[in-house]
Amino acid sequence: MVAVGIWAKRDDMIVHQAEPYNAEPVRAALAGRMLTPVESFYARNHGPIPLIDPDTWRLRVDGLVERDLDLSLADLRRRFTPRTLTITLQCAGNRRSGLIGVRDIPGEHPWGPGATSTAEWTGVSLAEVLRAAGPRDPAAHVAFAAPDVSALADPPQPYGGSIPLAKALAGEVLLAWAMNGQPLPPAHGAPVRIVVPGYIGARSVKWVQRITVQDVPSGNYFQATAYRLLPAEMDPDAAGPGDGLSLGAVAVNADILRPCEGAIVSAGPVNVCGYAFAGDDRGIARVDVSVDDGRHWRQADLGEDAGPWAWRLWHSVIDVPPGQREIIARAWDTCAAVQPESAVHLWNPKGYVNNSWARLRITAR
Amino acid sequence: MVAVGIWAKRDDMIVHQAEPYNAEPVRAALAGRMLTPVESFYARNHGPIPLIDPDTWRLRVDGLVERDLDLSLADLRRRFTPRTLTITLQCAGNRRSGLIGVRDIPGEHPWGPGATSTAEWTGVSLAEVLRAAGPRDPAAHVAFAAPDVSALADPPQPYGGSIPLAKALAGEVLLAWAMNGQPLPPAHGAPVRIVVPGYIGARSVKWVQRITVQDVPSGNYFQATAYRLLPAEMDPDAAGPGDGLSLGAVAVNADILRPCEGAIVSAGPVNVCGYAFAGDDRGIARVDVSVDDGRHWRQADLGEDAGPWAWRLWHSVIDVPPGQREIIARAWDTCAAVQPESAVHLWNPKGYVNNSWARLRITAR
Repeated sequence: MVAVGIWAKRDDMIVHQAEPYNAEPVRAALAGRMLTPVESFYARNHGPIPLIDPDTWRLRVDGLVERDLDLSLADLRRRFTPRTLTITLQCAGNRRSGLIGVRDIPGEHPWGPGATSTAEWTGVSLAEVLRAAGPRDPAAHVAFAAPDVSALADPPQPYGGSIPLAKALAGEVLLAWAMNGQPLPPAHGAPVRIVVPGYIGARSVKWVQRITVQDVPSGNYFQATAYRLLPAEMDPDAAGPGDGLSLGAVAVNADILRPCEGAIVSAGPVNVCGYAFAGDDRGIARVDVSVDDGRHWRQADLGEDAGPWAWRLWHSVIDVPPGQREIIARAWDTCAAVQPESAVHLWNPKGYVNNSWARLRITAR
Repeated sequence: MVAVGIWAKRDDMIVHQAEPYNAEPVRAALAGRMLTPVESFYARNHGPIPLIDPDTWRLRVDGLVERDLDLSLADLRRRFTPRTLTITLQCAGNRRSGLIGVRDIPGEHPWGPGATSTAEWTGVSLAEVLRAAGPRDPAAHVAFAAPDVSALADPPQPYGGSIPLAKALAGEVLLAWAMNGQPLPPAHGAPVRIVVPGYIGARSVKWVQRITVQDVPSGNYFQATAYRLLPAEMDPDAAGPGDGLSLGAVAVNADILRPCEGAIVSAGPVNVCGYAFAGDDRGIARVDVSVDDGRHWRQADLGEDAGPWAWRLWHSVIDVPPGQREIIARAWDTCAAVQPESAVHLWNPKGYVNNSWARLRITAR
C-alpha cells in the first residue's frame, strides 16, 4: 500500500487541495452530460490515497452476522450477481461557497456546484453480500472501514462511516469495482468502494476493507462528529460526537451549469442548463428558472430520467433583458419539496447542505 | 347506504363547509397531544358521507393479481394479522390560508394549520392482503375506490386514488377499522378505510370497497386532475389529467399551536409549542424558533418520537421583547431539508403544500 500525493492540475478541475486531493470539475465540464467522465469526477479525500493490489485485497464482513465472510475480489465477482446502476454522488459540502458568501467558514474547502458527479457503477449489491453473512438481532446499522488514515480526524484514524441496515438491505447499495465501464482508479476507491445511492458522498466509503453489522451507527469520527449539520450558533470546535443532525439522504438541490458565472451575453433568448438532484428514492418533478428574482418562473425542460439514483439534467431558453441580471433556478422533488430561497438562513458552522436557490450573475447587452 | 349531512358545530372545530363536511380543529385542540381525539380529528370530504352496514360490507381485490379476493370485515380480521400504528394524516391543503394571504385561491377551503391530525389506527397491512391476491406483472400501482359520489369531480364520480405498488407492499399501509381504539365513525371511513402513512391524506381513501392492482396510476379525477401542484401561471380551470406534479409523500412542514394567533402576552419568557411532520419514512431532526425574523434561532425541545409515521410535537420557551412580534418556527427533516421561508414563492393555483415557515403574530406588553 503506497500513498499517492502528486496530481496534475487540469484545466477543467478546480483543485481545492493537493494533499489530501480535493477537486471539483468546473461547471462546463458537467454541463449537458448524464455521465461525468472519470477524469472530471469530483474527488473528496480525507487522507492520502492508498494504492491497493487488487489480487491481495480482502473484504471482511463481521459483527452481528450468522457467519463472518472473508472475500477476495474474485469471490465478489463469482459468488454474487454483477449489476450496473447510474448513480449520482454529491458531497454534503457541495455549493458551500454560497454559504461562505453569507459568513466565513474557516478550515473547510469552498466547494462550488461541482462537488457532485454521476457515473455508471458496476459491482454487486451489498444486500446480497449481507444476506450471505446473515444479519442477526439486534442488527440496525452497517459500518464501513477503509485503510486511509486521516489526520483531519480527532484523533487521527482511518476513514469510516455507516448506513442504516434497512438502506443496506434495499438492494441499490453497491460494492463497486468499476465506474463508466473502467476499473476504479485509486482516487475513486480501487479496487472496491461502497456506493450509497441518494446519500451524501461521505457514506460511499472508498477502499473498503471491512463491513461490520452492528446495533449502533459507526463511532468513526466522520460519522459521529463530522458530516453533521450543526446549529448556526454552535462553536464547531466545541462540537463532539452526536452533536447536530447526522447527514444521510440528500435534500433536493440544483445548480446552473451554463452560462458561465459573470458571462456577458446578448440580451434576448439565453440557453440555461444545469442539474437537479434529490436523495433517497425521490425524483425531480420540476425545475423553475427566473430572471426577475422569483417574481415569474419558467419551467425548464427535464432531460433523461435515468432512474431514482441519478440527477436530472435540465435546460431552458429564457428571455434576458439588457442589464446585470441574476439567473435563478430551483428544483422541486417528487414530494413537492422545493429548495429554500436564501442561503442566509441555511448558514451553518461546517457549511453543509446549501440547497438554496441557484443564483448566477450575468450581464446582457 | 344513507348520506349524512347534518353536523353540529363544535366550539373547537372550524367548519369550512357543512355539506360535504369539511372541518379542522382549532390550534388549541391539537396542542400538546400526540393523539388527536376522534371528535377533533380533521375531516376532509368530497361528497356525502355514506353509512355502510359493516355486516354487509365487502372488499373486492382485483386487477393484476393471481386471484381476485372478495372479503368481509370478518374475513379481514380472521385471515390477516391485526396491527396498530400511530399515523399522522395531513391534507395537501393544510395551511392553505397562508397562500391565500399571498393571492386569492377561489373555490378552495381556507384550511389553517389544523388540516392534520394523528391517531392510533388499527387494521391489517395492505401488503398482507395484496400478497394473498398475488400481484402479477406489470403491476405498478394500487388503486382504491369508494362509493361516495363527488359532485366536485368532473364528471361527478366516486372518490378514488392510488399509490405506487412499492409503497403498498412496504407494510405500513393499513386497511383500518378503528382509530384510537374505537370503531371508525362514518365521517372517518367506517367500516374500513385505507391509511397511507407519510402520504397526503387524499390517498387514505375512506369507505374503501375495491382495490385494483394495475400498471398505471388511478384515472380517478382526484388522482389524475385534483391533488396536483400546478405551476403558478397555470389557469386551474384549464388544468386536465396529468398536469402539474402529482402529490404523494409529504414535504417537511410545521406549525405553531400555542400561543393563539393575536394573543396578548406578558413580555419575557413565552411558552411556544407546535407540531412538525415529514412524509415517507423521514423523521423530524430539529425545530427552530425565532422572534427576530430568523436572524437568531433557538432550538425547540422535541417531544416523544412515536415512529416514522407520526408527527413530532415540540415546545420551547422563548424570550419575547415588548411590542408586536412574529413568532417563527421551522422544521428540518432527517434529510436536512428545511421549510422554505416565504409563502410568496410557494403560491400555486390550487393552494397545495404550503410548507413555508410557520408565522404567528402576538403582542407582548
